[in-house]
Amino acid sequence: MKGKRGFASDNNAGVHPGILAAMSEVNEGHAVAYGNDPVTQRALDRFKATFGQDTETFFVFTGTAANVLGISAAARSHQAVLCPETAHINVDECGAPEKFSGSKLLSFATPDGKLTVDMLRPHLHALGVEHHVQPKIVSITQATEMGTLYSLEEIRTLADFAHTHEMLLHMDGARIANAAAAMDLSFRELTREAGVDILSFGGTKNGMMYGEAVVFFHPSLAQEFKYIRKQGMQLASKMRYISAQFLAYLDGDLWLHNARHANAMGAYLARQVRDIPGVVLTQEPRANAVFARIPGEIIPSLQQEFFFYVWDETTHEVRWMCSFDTTREDVEEFAALLRSRLGS
Amino acid sequence: MKGKRGFASDNNAGVHPGILAAMSEVNEGHAVAYGNDPVTQRALDRFKATFGQDTETFFVFTGTAANVLGISAAARSHQAVLCPETAHINVDECGAPEKFSGSKLLSFATPDGKLTVDMLRPHLHALGVEHHVQPKIVSITQATEMGTLYSLEEIRTLADFAHTHEMLLHMDGARIANAAAAMDLSFRELTREAGVDILSFGGTKNGMMYGEAVVFFHPSLAQEFKYIRKQGMQLASKMRYISAQFLAYLDGDLWLHNARHANAMGAYLARQVRDIPGVVLTQEPRANAVFARIPGEIIPSLQQEFFFYVWDETTHEVRWMCSFDTTREDVEEFAALLRSRLGS
Amino acid sequence: MKGKRGFASDNNAGVHPGILAAMSEVNEGHAVAYGNDPVTQRALDRFKATFGQDTETFFVFTGTAANVLGISAAARSHQAVLCPETAHINVDECGAPEKFSGSKLLSFATPDGKLTVDMLRPHLHALGVEHHVQPKIVSITQATEMGTLYSLEEIRTLADFAHTHEMLLHMDGARIANAAAAMDLSFRELTREAGVDILSFGGTKNGMMYGEAVVFFHPSLAQEFKYIRKQGMQLASKMRYISAQFLAYLDGDLWLHNARHANAMGAYLARQVRDIPGVVLTQEPRANAVFARIPGEIIPSLQQEFFFYVWDETTHEVRWMCSFDTTREDVEEFAALLRSRLGS
Amino acid sequence: MKGKRGFASDNNAGVHPGILAAMSEVNEGHAVAYGNDPVTQRALDRFKATFGQDTETFFVFTGTAANVLGISAAARSHQAVLCPETAHINVDECGAPEKFSGSKLLSFATPDGKLTVDMLRPHLHALGVEHHVQPKIVSITQATEMGTLYSLEEIRTLADFAHTHEMLLHMDGARIANAAAAMDLSFRELTREAGVDILSFGGTKNGMMYGEAVVFFHPSLAQEFKYIRKQGMQLASKMRYISAQFLAYLDGDLWLHNARHANAMGAYLARQVRDIPGVVLTQEPRANAVFARIPGEIIPSLQQEFFFYVWDETTHEVRWMCSFDTTREDVEEFAALLRSRLGS
Repeated sequence: MKGKRGFASDNNAGVHPGILAAMSEVNEGHAVAYGNDPVTQRALDRFKATFGQDTETFFVFTGTAANVLGISAAARSHQAVLCPETAHINVDECGAPEKFSGSKLLSFATPDGKLTVDMLRPHLHALGVEHHVQPKIVSITQATEMGTLYSLEEIRTLADFAHTHEMLLHMDGARIANAAAAMDLSFRELTREAGVDILSFGGTKNGMMYGEAVVFFHPSLAQEFKYIRKQGMQLASKMRYISAQFLAYLDGDLWLHNARHANAMGAYLARQVRDIPGVVLTQEPRANAVFARIPGEIIPSLQQEFFFYVWDETTHEVRWMCSFDTTREDVEEFAALLRSRLGS
Repeated sequence: MKGKRGFASDNNAGVHPGILAAMSEVNEGHAVAYGNDPVTQRALDRFKATFGQDTETFFVFTGTAANVLGISAAARSHQAVLCPETAHINVDECGAPEKFSGSKLLSFATPDGKLTVDMLRPHLHALGVEHHVQPKIVSITQATEMGTLYSLEEIRTLADFAHTHEMLLHMDGARIANAAAAMDLSFRELTREAGVDILSFGGTKNGMMYGEAVVFFHPSLAQEFKYIRKQGMQLASKMRYISAQFLAYLDGDLWLHNARHANAMGAYLARQVRDIPGVVLTQEPRANAVFARIPGEIIPSLQQEFFFYVWDETTHEVRWMCSFDTTREDVEEFAALLRSRLGS
Repeated sequence: MKGKRGFASDNNAGVHPGILAAMSEVNEGHAVAYGNDPVTQRALDRFKATFGQDTETFFVFTGTAANVLGISAAARSHQAVLCPETAHINVDECGAPEKFSGSKLLSFATPDGKLTVDMLRPHLHALGVEHHVQPKIVSITQATEMGTLYSLEEIRTLADFAHTHEMLLHMDGARIANAAAAMDLSFRELTREAGVDILSFGGTKNGMMYGEAVVFFHPSLAQEFKYIRKQGMQLASKMRYISAQFLAYLDGDLWLHNARHANAMGAYLARQVRDIPGVVLTQEPRANAVFARIPGEIIPSLQQEFFFYVWDETTHEVRWMCSFDTTREDVEEFAALLRSRLGS
Repeated sequence: MKGKRGFASDNNAGVHPGILAAMSEVNEGHAVAYGNDPVTQRALDRFKATFGQDTETFFVFTGTAANVLGISAAARSHQAVLCPETAHINVDECGAPEKFSGSKLLSFATPDGKLTVDMLRPHLHALGVEHHVQPKIVSITQATEMGTLYSLEEIRTLADFAHTHEMLLHMDGARIANAAAAMDLSFRELTREAGVDILSFGGTKNGMMYGEAVVFFHPSLAQEFKYIRKQGMQLASKMRYISAQFLAYLDGDLWLHNARHANAMGAYLARQVRDIPGVVLTQEPRANAVFARIPGEIIPSLQQEFFFYVWDETTHEVRWMCSFDTTREDVEEFAALLRSRLGS
């Protein structure tokens, strides 16, 4: 039954035992469905304690839903979302943002998965012209899909640009725990205080089973969101089981413990492989992902031992992702295998 | 922590311990995300064993999603869904069907939550006329939202009508277990063999935590569904935890055990209250729901002891819903309370 | 080439010569496309003169577009439109409102095509409950699809109800000229001053070639409408030819002349046929439409001489529509034919 | 009243007198609305004569609508459209394709507004993977938005690539007349015989008033299109006035006469300005558009005399567009002005 740990995805990991235990603990008696239960109330209070009493949080099932519905809350269909070409919303959500919000995504080629103001500025000429979609949301991912990080300064610069032009800053935080751990910042410092307006707060990649949160840093954005969530098919009937996960995840800094470990394993893996001849790291690993170019011919046999994904078929760039349950032995075994395959 | 059991909703119940145990059991090691794991493979095989090897099943998070995405697989936006006015898709999904599929819902007033061919026939005149939406899907709920049941004969008649006019029959089976148990039929007899084309197969109201299934009885309907599910924000990353629930639910007839019990409690409740002066049952209870008219002035104080919902504010019709964990004592205590409030 | 005039639809009529002449007159030289031309500026000024300087008007191609985009400007997809079952938006637009705005239509059976507050009131219970679509727009048609009229008092009552509950009143004015003529009211008195918030102002059924106007009585509703129109595929490149029509239509009260004539022909037809044995008028004709029940067996042969539509196949209710070019001779010839077919 | 001819857009031109006369000629008597009239029948027959008896044509109001609805007929919302970055559907339709079809547009930077197979090939890796939108339609514009042309060979190569991978080739033919005239090909040779599957056939930019056609080269694609057109708010009630325009446009090769003239004026303009110091043509003009880089400081004063658009604010690339009514004198006057402004 037990599946071997590989480096394919932090989504392939299981659920942290502390999370599972918390779900069992709330499994007693009846609770009003759809979120009007005391466990959910406590979880929402916990989010207010984290981000501020004047913020509003809603739970949904998936990261895709958190992104799409968060965007839908703020943009009408003639308004556009500006994001990197590599953004999850742009390549990995099967067009869900366009389908649900109707909004067009304007994407930008980047070397490292990170937007800059210089990329966005040319689109300002569209403002006010009805032939063109109207830039409304700047969407960044932290940690990015390339395993890189925006600095606080970079986030603030994007936020200032957005706000100057009546746009909003959305952060896809599917791996925000890894980012916060790597940067030694609180969630609040990394998001709200840096100018983020809407946050997709993920937990599934860091030890939860399911459930993500949409956090609005302006109550006005949240005003109609309960309807958007329901119409978006994301209102859980037995909500308490998502809420219990978030409580366990945030209490006692389980999120930080897990993320630090995954990051440390990423860094360890980078150290182990970066000097192997034939391996070229293509991004500076800052969180739990390592991107590298390796000879294409060794990829299939490596994958048979430790599964991972090829990021770019033409350049043989691969992604190795560590998770909260990756062990030092996993890393060492994999690095040794890689070294032997490359004959060094 | 423990919430008192009421008669508000089978969604307010917790999770059956057997389901929870099964989720823990699959929590070992890594598994490929998004459904390409062995647990999900086994669960899908189990559905093929239940409904036929030439059927296709997909897991989603919620019943609303199962309905909306199942409809979207079969209807384009200019095609209509015909359903009772009381249908969940019509009143309780915040317009998700219209939003996602673009399809219009044509609804019909019914005395008992059940469609008949006579209601549908007048809409045939729209066929082929571009000004009107084109009837494409007939959607029924089994057991209905009113706690009633379609007979096999009634389902077959609707299916024949639909198929004669190149339409499809969709069944919202949020409580299909209660129906199958009440009618002593297999899932297959109650659906595919009666002419149903698309089934929303629910488990959450009968002891599962989350996760519903869309079952297509014609492979052609399923052809593009994996994209529809992903675009519909309903592809679970850690799918194995849904799959494990379904395996436990179907294995050893846990579903039947739970549904029989809930139905028995519904019948018991009906027997206990039907002769109380002031109580008028408004539907013949066939599954786990009891609908009754009671004096409006006693409702608030009753709800403080045992929570339940008022179905119709103007007539004081109320809904009492039993679930897999309702006890005989719950029923008796509630009936006694009701009797005392009514002074008999 | 010349097609015989029947009583099928005011859409079957041609274009008033004065309109056609006005289109030719603007056909000189270049004009900035998409509405930034002086003819369009004059036409928009004419609408401001008609409805008030603080109103905003936009031209689109069709009445369906005027309705759908007007609704989209004011309602998000989780908000609902309340309308009579017979409303054009409900039965004759192939689901365009649901498709484009995502909004659900909640429709009400009426004897005469007219909403009342009593029909709407029960839907207030949905307000604030996320499972249900949120009532946002009350939509009425004036003159109605049944040839009837709302009185000013009736419009005001609906407007007050809507505004009390933070809803808006939309008027489908495909035949607003016929209503204004029949009631001897100005457009402004009939709409804005009676509490209407959004108006679809039609001209095509009353002698124009194409082009309808969406009129917003609150500038805030119009704020993003230019994008909605463009995204709705309704921005005319050579806009001046729509604008020229509206100028000719409004100047010199051509609209009133045409509408009065069509109404007079409707009244004349009603007088001519109402006493023929076998003919039962089913609505009191107030504008240019006459609804009647006649023996089913004479319908096909009548239609061969003067085309018209059967409104209800089961009851043999038919609709006879007069237009700006219907003549007294047309009416008399038709009435004589009808009398002879009925053997009287 | 008469607006000065500039070089801003062929949409700024008026309507050819022959078109206007044809519209007047059909203005007699009644005709069944919504396209069931004899004029429309003749126009559709004329399209069958042009493209083949086994093709299906539908009239809509705008070029945006022709593109969006043509795409919607062939692609579901999880399927993608591949197009150049400069495509009208990508930049000038305010997101209407995404809004109406739900489909994502995948766009490619090009030097000349033209797609190549090499650009498209990397997207084949997405086929079958549910996380990614599924490439379904390759969309090209002929003549392109940059005034360039695809050769027959280039179109065939794209068509073969599309068909090999179960995709379709869509052509935005807003200026197809200019292309056919420039290449001395029939419409059929340029489209169907080169492998195009769906054509937006434009006339408005070449002397019509309004109205575009969607032409399907496979009847199966057209099967449900009448509903899509109606739901897309593009069904004209008084259709005969569009049909009359198309008849006049196609009869006697008016289209060819107009397009040849516009092209000749484009070529003449290019000859007149290409040697002026300070003017750099940025595309080889093949149809009626001339693209050039000129010193930014002279642009505003030039525009006051002859209006035109700046294509790229940063490089001062401008677009000069000729139309069916541009005269040699217009060109010479403008060239002289340009020369004098540049001091040569």
